[in-house]
Amino acid sequence: MTPKLARFIDSGVLATPAIVIDLDRIAANFGALREALPDAAIYYAVKANPAAPVLDRLLGLGSRFDAASIEEIRACLAVGAAPSAISFGNTVKKSSAIAEAFASGVDLFAFDSDEELAKIAAAAPGAKVYCRLAVSQDGADWPLSRKFGTTGAHARDLLITARDLGLIPHGVSFHVGSQQTGVGAYQTAIGQAAMVFSDLRARGIDLRLLNLGGGFPTRYRDDIPAIGTFGDAIMTSVRAHFGNDLPDLLIEPGRAVVADAGVAVTEVVLACTRREDSDRRWVYLDIGRFGGLAETEGEAIKYAITAPGLTGPDAPAILAGPSCDGVDVMYRDTPYHLPASLKSGDRILIHDTGAYVTSYASQGFNGFLPPQEHYL
Amino acid sequence: MTPKLARFIDSGVLATPAIVIDLDRIAANFGALREALPDAAIYYAVKANPAAPVLDRLLGLGSRFDAASIEEIRACLAVGAAPSAISFGNTVKKSSAIAEAFASGVDLFAFDSDEELAKIAAAAPGAKVYCRLAVSQDGADWPLSRKFGTTGAHARDLLITARDLGLIPHGVSFHVGSQQTGVGAYQTAIGQAAMVFSDLRARGIDLRLLNLGGGFPTRYRDDIPAIGTFGDAIMTSVRAHFGNDLPDLLIEPGRAVVADAGVAVTEVVLACTRREDSDRRWVYLDIGRFGGLAETEGEAIKYAITAPGLTGPDAPAILAGPSCDGVDVMYRDTPYHLPASLKSGDRILIHDTGAYVTSYASQGFNGFLPPQEHYL
Repeated sequence: MTPKLARFIDSGVLATPAIVIDLDRIAANFGALREALPDAAIYYAVKANPAAPVLDRLLGLGSRFDAASIEEIRACLAVGAAPSAISFGNTVKKSSAIAEAFASGVDLFAFDSDEELAKIAAAAPGAKVYCRLAVSQDGADWPLSRKFGTTGAHARDLLITARDLGLIPHGVSFHVGSQQTGVGAYQTAIGQAAMVFSDLRARGIDLRLLNLGGGFPTRYRDDIPAIGTFGDAIMTSVRAHFGNDLPDLLIEPGRAVVADAGVAVTEVVLACTRREDSDRRWVYLDIGRFGGLAETEGEAIKYAITAPGLTGPDAPAILAGPSCDGVDVMYRDTPYHLPASLKSGDRILIHDTGAYVTSYASQGFNGFLPPQEHYL
Repeated sequence: MTPKLARFIDSGVLATPAIVIDLDRIAANFGALREALPDAAIYYAVKANPAAPVLDRLLGLGSRFDAASIEEIRACLAVGAAPSAISFGNTVKKSSAIAEAFASGVDLFAFDSDEELAKIAAAAPGAKVYCRLAVSQDGADWPLSRKFGTTGAHARDLLITARDLGLIPHGVSFHVGSQQTGVGAYQTAIGQAAMVFSDLRARGIDLRLLNLGGGFPTRYRDDIPAIGTFGDAIMTSVRAHFGNDLPDLLIEPGRAVVADAGVAVTEVVLACTRREDSDRRWVYLDIGRFGGLAETEGEAIKYAITAPGLTGPDAPAILAGPSCDGVDVMYRDTPYHLPASLKSGDRILIHDTGAYVTSYASQGFNGFLPPQEHYL
């Protein structure tokens, strides 16, 4: 937690649950990514945290934007982003959304199927398109499954079709999975992408864009490689496959930009011992899986959790949300320890919750409102 | 789908995604429950659908209300419910919420731990309390896990403590799990509850309330027993255990009241074939797990899905939501078939989505707004 966040949380009465974000940390993270990959254009993945203060700060730093929906594109335009600085990165889009984006000046679109390509050709004639490859996501804590992406051979055929439909076959993208902690997935994927480039060059199509996607990790409870490690591995791999004819590189970081800039301030609703789990207390917080901590599904993302101001020995805890829903349990299998003195009304901090929290929050499950958001 | 819903959906242009609710069907379901269990007071589980038109209609029919939070209590009071007709049924409550409810006139509170009991004694002195038992949830499609409830022996001790703290030890509750399709879980649980009643009578405490909880199912794709089957089995079991000295009975139906009164109107964003899943198309809708269909997690709740107006042969489909999140897939293992002619822009109906949909919807994941709600 940054000193600015700590001061704000300590300074007064804050209604819980709340998410507090340090915009300076976002700027620092953006700078570190730019330094690690100076040859890549940074398209911030808006879905990680779409709040206007975040978009505004990043715009001022020269960020571009990867949008998942027309609503996110509107949010980027609203803070003053140039349409040419926006990529419509969801491979699944309504035709009406494609048309509105194109009319607004956005001209870079993702796809991974014949059907989507036909929609883009109809709604955004002449636009630049890139095809998403399905690649290995080994090493990712929040993998993206087979929902997106296609094979290299199909991508090659699709990009030829794109040209025949009057679109500009601009490049290839992939996504190695979110919270990806290894560099190997990038290296393999870059090799797959390079084959599509060379296959198409042989057919008279010069692709320009290699979209390396997002997935760059943040530090939760476990150490992760420094961002420079990813940058070095990616550039070594790109040079090995592309030589001196480097493509335009693009990255779509979301989590790595905003996650560690945020902290959730929550209150213990109840801490109690249940006879069936007598070795561990149940600790119920006023935020849970449906209040924004959706990535605790399957205990995938393991947030660092602290109880500021409490001293004394720790005791093991099961952590649950406040709703009547039985699946609203964050951590039962993952060991967590909190002060044994913890009781109802105590304050709990859930760290590194700047990404993929506020936007997931339900609009009112069990009557609980989404966490309040504070941007400093 | 009721004729009123069908007429409304057919009659004009409806922005999708939308949830349309037939309030008359809610009234009919309420009547059927009252007929099936005439000796039980019905406390509608507000969390199933907290919309004011639903609460208002049920209030007019004489329903009482089971609230999970102070926000739900406020919603009930706002439509004119008497405080004495509200049960604060969450066993995990902030002290501030208990105090506000009590000050509003609510005097019936659930608990299942020593710690919660102490909070209620402090914030709602003299209130009526009932202790939740942990019971078997075999047969439930959406079980509630070990997050709530305690053993019979502990419940007995807790209710004695309640008396010693100046509270009124009023009764016992249990919950057999949501979408419970068997009567056996009720029979077993009623036996466990009866033992607590008799144990406490021997100690000079006469409990009055047997709260049978909710869990009554609705018909999704599979047939379920008629509600009368549950009523008969419950009353037979209650009479067997309590004889002529029947306790006050209370049920907390939610799903059985509102689920089949609703239909989700959605649009196909993309239907495409992926080479890795060449035997089935991927069909992406403009509603998904984070747009309200949270109960498709683990494919637990299997909604009936139709494509009105499309003819011709069906083809197998994987069903996914519109977001960039890989876990936003509703049905991959469960066989679903939709017309082979289905394409982007076609309308899809997801039936029986009146319960546990609108309130789960995220406030804007990937920029997608919650479904619009229409109450007829």
